[in-house]
Amino acid sequence: MEEAPTAFEGSPTPTRRPTSAAAEEILGGYFPVLDHGFVALVDYMGDDASVERAARVSYGYGTRKVSMTRGLLRYLRRHLHTTPSEMVELCFHCSMPIFVARQWVRHRTASVNEYSGRYSLMPLLFYNPRREHFALQSGSSNQGRATGDADAELYAEAVRRWEAVRSQVAADYGWLAGENVARELARIDLPLSTYTQWYWKIDLHNLLHFLTLRVDEHAQWEIQEYGRVIAAMVKRVAPISYEAWIDYQVMGDRLSRGELRALARLVAADEGGVAARPDARLSDGDLGGLGLSKREIRELKAKLAPRDVPDFELDVSQMRSPERAAEDALAAVPGAGGGQSGP
Amino acid sequence: MEEAPTAFEGSPTPTRRPTSAAAEEILGGYFPVLDHGFVALVDYMGDDASVERAARVSYGYGTRKVSMTRGLLRYLRRHLHTTPSEMVELCFHCSMPIFVARQWVRHRTASVNEYSGRYSLMPLLFYNPRREHFALQSGSSNQGRATGDADAELYAEAVRRWEAVRSQVAADYGWLAGENVARELARIDLPLSTYTQWYWKIDLHNLLHFLTLRVDEHAQWEIQEYGRVIAAMVKRVAPISYEAWIDYQVMGDRLSRGELRALARLVAADEGGVAARPDARLSDGDLGGLGLSKREIRELKAKLAPRDVPDFELDVSQMRSPERAAEDALAAVPGAGGGQSGP
Amino acid sequence: MEEAPTAFEGSPTPTRRPTSAAAEEILGGYFPVLDHGFVALVDYMGDDASVERAARVSYGYGTRKVSMTRGLLRYLRRHLHTTPSEMVELCFHCSMPIFVARQWVRHRTASVNEYSGRYSLMPLLFYNPRREHFALQSGSSNQGRATGDADAELYAEAVRRWEAVRSQVAADYGWLAGENVARELARIDLPLSTYTQWYWKIDLHNLLHFLTLRVDEHAQWEIQEYGRVIAAMVKRVAPISYEAWIDYQVMGDRLSRGELRALARLVAADEGGVAARPDARLSDGDLGGLGLSKREIRELKAKLAPRDVPDFELDVSQMRSPERAAEDALAAVPGAGGGQSGP
Amino acid sequence: MEEAPTAFEGSPTPTRRPTSAAAEEILGGYFPVLDHGFVALVDYMGDDASVERAARVSYGYGTRKVSMTRGLLRYLRRHLHTTPSEMVELCFHCSMPIFVARQWVRHRTASVNEYSGRYSLMPLLFYNPRREHFALQSGSSNQGRATGDADAELYAEAVRRWEAVRSQVAADYGWLAGENVARELARIDLPLSTYTQWYWKIDLHNLLHFLTLRVDEHAQWEIQEYGRVIAAMVKRVAPISYEAWIDYQVMGDRLSRGELRALARLVAADEGGVAARPDARLSDGDLGGLGLSKREIRELKAKLAPRDVPDFELDVSQMRSPERAAEDALAAVPGAGGGQSGP
Repeated sequence: MEEAPTAFEGSPTPTRRPTSAAAEEILGGYFPVLDHGFVALVDYMGDDASVERAARVSYGYGTRKVSMTRGLLRYLRRHLHTTPSEMVELCFHCSMPIFVARQWVRHRTASVNEYSGRYSLMPLLFYNPRREHFALQSGSSNQGRATGDADAELYAEAVRRWEAVRSQVAADYGWLAGENVARELARIDLPLSTYTQWYWKIDLHNLLHFLTLRVDEHAQWEIQEYGRVIAAMVKRVAPISYEAWIDYQVMGDRLSRGELRALARLVAADEGGVAARPDARLSDGDLGGLGLSKREIRELKAKLAPRDVPDFELDVSQMRSPERAAEDALAAVPGAGGGQSGP
Repeated sequence: MEEAPTAFEGSPTPTRRPTSAAAEEILGGYFPVLDHGFVALVDYMGDDASVERAARVSYGYGTRKVSMTRGLLRYLRRHLHTTPSEMVELCFHCSMPIFVARQWVRHRTASVNEYSGRYSLMPLLFYNPRREHFALQSGSSNQGRATGDADAELYAEAVRRWEAVRSQVAADYGWLAGENVARELARIDLPLSTYTQWYWKIDLHNLLHFLTLRVDEHAQWEIQEYGRVIAAMVKRVAPISYEAWIDYQVMGDRLSRGELRALARLVAADEGGVAARPDARLSDGDLGGLGLSKREIRELKAKLAPRDVPDFELDVSQMRSPERAAEDALAAVPGAGGGQSGP
Repeated sequence: MEEAPTAFEGSPTPTRRPTSAAAEEILGGYFPVLDHGFVALVDYMGDDASVERAARVSYGYGTRKVSMTRGLLRYLRRHLHTTPSEMVELCFHCSMPIFVARQWVRHRTASVNEYSGRYSLMPLLFYNPRREHFALQSGSSNQGRATGDADAELYAEAVRRWEAVRSQVAADYGWLAGENVARELARIDLPLSTYTQWYWKIDLHNLLHFLTLRVDEHAQWEIQEYGRVIAAMVKRVAPISYEAWIDYQVMGDRLSRGELRALARLVAADEGGVAARPDARLSDGDLGGLGLSKREIRELKAKLAPRDVPDFELDVSQMRSPERAAEDALAAVPGAGGGQSGP
Repeated sequence: MEEAPTAFEGSPTPTRRPTSAAAEEILGGYFPVLDHGFVALVDYMGDDASVERAARVSYGYGTRKVSMTRGLLRYLRRHLHTTPSEMVELCFHCSMPIFVARQWVRHRTASVNEYSGRYSLMPLLFYNPRREHFALQSGSSNQGRATGDADAELYAEAVRRWEAVRSQVAADYGWLAGENVARELARIDLPLSTYTQWYWKIDLHNLLHFLTLRVDEHAQWEIQEYGRVIAAMVKRVAPISYEAWIDYQVMGDRLSRGELRALARLVAADEGGVAARPDARLSDGDLGGLGLSKREIRELKAKLAPRDVPDFELDVSQMRSPERAAEDALAAVPGAGGGQSGP
């Protein structure tokens, strides 16, 4: 993709539907994720104004419509009045390792059509973690991966083992396919690192919920990578909703009854503002007395610490054509070209 | 609407998304239903080719793609492989009596944003059944309304009573609103015949399931009227899917184990075709012996009787502008213009 | 119900399923809500231990199971890991005015079977707001009802009007039913204050989400009343989950990026606790500078104010038998006893 | 399990909820499926009478309740009035190969809590197809597996290759776990034949839909095996619903408009029964003229052919205790016993 990206999804046709110029720019363009994966936005419906229109139907006749779009959309998101954002829909074509697909598909409010290893031969593309993402098990309990990469020698040995087993698996799969063994059986020893692909359609409300969980540092790093690309696509379809999501969900947080009680002992609100109470201090013991467990105390402190605001942006120079994405997959299919007919 | 309808939903913008010329023609146009209701298609995503594309991802590399779109889409619908048709989405603005809205909203797989009687004043528009749809209770148990209209005098008296009570209800609502009583309380005696309105978004799979139930003669006649208009809109967005739906769902039927056994005694299949078995006959008693209840025997006979094939078409000459639809509702709001601000 | 409540739902049978003695006590007992409504817990599945068991399957072999049930359940709810709480299910029989039913049914993740006005005659029971809940429209925009009741004379006139119109509506409905007009038409002028009833089944995760919204002061007061009774029933089925819900959802709150930044300027965390920063103060103007709108500033101050912790409890002395509840409804059916047969 | 099965799920407690003796007999008992998998019914709510009760609320006051439970339940299922059957809920503990789990989880209307390879070490149990289920790819397009097993030598070689690669994979996984590499990375080369496990809860309506698809011959044989065991458990919880499902869904079929037109030319209904029309015959060409494609003609003939009625029954002698099932899995965990704590 050296030159400027062009109309991947057919030639422009006039429509009277809400249209986003920023989304049209990347529509049908394939963005690489991990070593062999991709995400492409292949269709969308609605924009920020569609969310507003749906919300406005509730505030109908006999109400003054003083609010601007941004104020209304931020109000809705802050209070989790999410039904209006269901009016926007996005459809993606994605390819990811099966272990990522298994986490992804737990979100049940989307429509999915996946590549079938029963009908079709699988492209033999496997995910190889890079050195800097190869890490030890985290010592704390609710995080899978420790920060900081693992030993170089350890990594080299892991790569050697991955390569050995995948080479064997690929040979076996090719042999079974060559012997015309049922594909649904031939594929049972493909590893979870094998790439699959699907069309995935979801409304904006459920997508932002998905993204909140999947761009979070507790998600497995590999699925975070997909979340970041999709978030950047959302920004092009519905930029005001995206900004509200960053401010209220990604960068916001939940406080418990105990945490709010603790803060109310340290901070007082008055007519003109909010102020620290003089000399107010709660030790860890005091916090425990307010009902916070040790883990909750750690969590409260983390909520008060500064965090970087993420800015999800696509690298348009990486965008590839659908044909190019298809060729890469096809080239990895054993003995590509043969096979049975679909219905 | 004397002249040809024009761009109700803004001016045309180029898009690279799938676009249907037939749908663009009526996009944002308001079609009257019943005496004060309407349906407008306000947005859509995808078309028949989108369904095919999603299905094709399953029949990927190593399969020969011999099928044409129509053959594939009919195959999918016949076998109720419905996930690919979830890739198409339609968004409507509709107004209907509350008793219709209550049946409609039982379909849980749609997104709804409804006019709020808590925040806004209700337009005082009430549904008046016409003479020819005013009928007696059906004698058979699973149908609400007998065929054939009721006595003229009975109808006249019903209309007189409807008018009297609605006039009283409207006066009360106006008085309560004038006294600034909370709207959520002022509205509690509005009748189920009062029109409400909503934005309603649903995917093609779930919409066709909704329509199968709602254009059926067992549905209340008033909601059938909405079903027929929406079905005609679907035909413009996804004509091949629509045709398959007519052939396999609307005009198709389910046969039970007992019914199939009965038919297999009357009909034999061979290499070259299917043929009636000579002198084969099953009396009602024989059918009972195969496990069919009296009601099932009636149902089997009805399945073998000829039925008219419905042809759902919009009357484009009836299409009105969004402004016109809004004015009609606004004019029915008591003391229109005042009120509180939305957020 | 003077004496102790007894086995409303059949006689006790031994089961090896999780059983809650507190829930069994009230199983099948009808608790009055509003003037003619009720809620009864008619079935349930699972308890707090079922939530734990489902969560534990994730923390399988090779993990040390150090946590206790309460700690784990509170951790799950704090972090909105809600899928384990989907393992508990509750089923209710409820009766409520139609305007309440319309708010209720917007929660799409429940199973509902409602009384049908198409097949059956409606009991003519109407909701009458009491003096103390009859209020003016709120001046602020997102609340339906002002605090404090309205003028006594205004209330008296409203009651007079309600009675007049309902008496007319009841006479009309009785006349239409007597003339054997189709029930689906006879009922169209029944007011939104008419009581309907349904069976409603939902899992604990979705129920707590429903309750969070419906016991909130922004919900219409009438549906709050149902929320409070149902919350008290949840407490009997899954008391630890209930307690966590109170602490993290009902009494907890969401803070935005701007609010967290503001608090971080007023409060500092260190190794041993959290402390107010000396002389730290943010005026309303400063808060605006951090991106908070006027409304968000009001909301932040409200979050720091003390709030009462609700304690939802059933008044078991009010519990009535199913037979008694059915009799009350039946007595309100016009010409009770006639009619068509169900299938 | 030589002696009679006993109370796996705790000791019996009295309950006033609907209880099924046949379900209690097997509650918490683990039934083997495939070589290392299992299904256990661990909880249930409701029975056939619960379905009837929910349906009856629609046929309320003013209707004569003439129907019996069986007649009503069969009527509901025949007409796909499925909401009442949502009132029954079943919860299972299951273990299956990951490729089966991936098909299973496509049913989005269930609650799932799965064993996590991020937090926990995976038991190294792999699925080995038996000789008689090892088959070639089907020549017809919509079936994965040909009937009849494959060559013995081919099978022997496949087994040899499976064993070689699994032995390598197991050694690699053990080594990575031993080096304390993050588990979410260590597991990425486990094959799709690895067993996972989950708790799975679903209502009867959605379960019967799942089973209709999964006991069908077009489903992969391995998931059919799970379907058959679960169907037999349903039969113990709700036997009348189960029987109606067999008669109307498993053994029933859908006929298209064209098929019904064809049958109407061969068979005539009259007052007293149904009869073959004398000398009526439709050649394949005639059927094509009625709009049936070649494939549809084959399908019609298949619908008229006799089929065996399945009878799903549990082999209670195979039932094992939960402890036994857990031990088998634990024994397959590399270096079982170590590891990190759950929250």
